[in-house]
Amino acid sequence: MVQQADLDRTFAALADPTRRTMLERLGRGSATVSELAEPLGISLTGVKKHLHVLEEAGLVSTEKVGRSRHCRLGTERLDDAMAWIGFYQRLWERRLDGLDTWFTLQKGTDR
Amino acid sequence: MVQQADLDRTFAALADPTRRTMLERLGRGSATVSELAEPLGISLTGVKKHLHVLEEAGLVSTEKVGRSRHCRLGTERLDDAMAWIGFYQRLWERRLDGLDTWFTLQKGTDR
Repeated sequence: MVQQADLDRTFAALADPTRRTMLERLGRGSATVSELAEPLGISLTGVKKHLHVLEEAGLVSTEKVGRSRHCRLGTERLDDAMAWIGFYQRLWERRLDGLDTWFTLQKGTDR
Repeated sequence: MVQQADLDRTFAALADPTRRTMLERLGRGSATVSELAEPLGISLTGVKKHLHVLEEAGLVSTEKVGRSRHCRLGTERLDDAMAWIGFYQRLWERRLDGLDTWFTLQKGTDR
């Protein structure tokens, strides 16, 4: 069963362009916090805050290796988020179908 | 081209269980603000705040009819959100493939 709190955390984590960029970067391979920070042009503290949000959502996992922290994509595959959006899209299509039927019925009445 | 600010608004709008419930309800047909509020057990003011977020994201459209406001699903089909999640999932799979190759190489080395 989908946990609502998990979906909340997932969607909230994705609702930020910096965090999405970080995920795209980690999708190409693991990186240290400094390597993540550099192209983004933001402070290490800023990156760490975003990492915390991503870790809480299971989208990133980090590991302390010596003096640096290594980051990689976490275990979250976003299946539940994908399923929810798919469900919404089916509702949306059905609404359009409904409108279509309504217009067809109206046309029939107009004749 | 995907507008980052649009994706921010979409994901942020979806990051709340009450707003997701409202979308599911509107997927079954239009409703007034009071009809939306009743099963949620929250105030009209609360519902209006959530509606505002959903409207800004294009997920709901509302129309004043007489003394009540009618709400229905908006024009946003969530295609960009779906595409982004699909892109992430491909990165995620590729990361797994990479790990798989790495394990196979390791096995070869162990022999």
